[in-house]
Amino acid sequence: MFVQGRENIAVAFKKIASYFKNSLKPVEGKMRFVIAGDTVLVLAQTFIQASNEALEASEYSSERRATYVFKKIDDSWVCAIDNSYGTSLLN
Amino acid sequence: MFVQGRENIAVAFKKIASYFKNSLKPVEGKMRFVIAGDTVLVLAQTFIQASNEALEASEYSSERRATYVFKKIDDSWVCAIDNSYGTSLLN
Repeated sequence: MFVQGRENIAVAFKKIASYFKNSLKPVEGKMRFVIAGDTVLVLAQTFIQASNEALEASEYSSERRATYVFKKIDDSWVCAIDNSYGTSLLN
Repeated sequence: MFVQGRENIAVAFKKIASYFKNSLKPVEGKMRFVIAGDTVLVLAQTFIQASNEALEASEYSSERRATYVFKKIDDSWVCAIDNSYGTSLLN
């Protein structure tokens, strides 16, 4: 699922929650930050906890290595790109 | 190895070439782009070809899944972050 824009992202999050029957609970593991000025690449180990039923239906692992890009805008870091599958998108 | 700035990056590239005895030849495989306005996250499969001697000395796989961040500046995409190890940095 690839979405852009605030409204579409809000709709997507609701669909994800529904898909996992509101049982989704991400737990963060190790993180690494690669910073270049106002841009940072975040590599994050994420463990997905959800109902067994929902996890068995998913083609993706419950341990993920996400890649995020945050940008510094007006002294706040905001998420520009959220790719929770990391390099698994290349599979 | 983590370096920032043009001069330091130039020095690092020379060290990398020397480490691989100038035998390093990266070959690109599959790529995926996740674009958000003036920022793009690039996921790229990279196959590293080098002398056997150099590859055997490396702790990293010769098949890599790199993550790059490019920014659009004055209508050109420039590389802001080059992380050739991708999420393997979390190992």
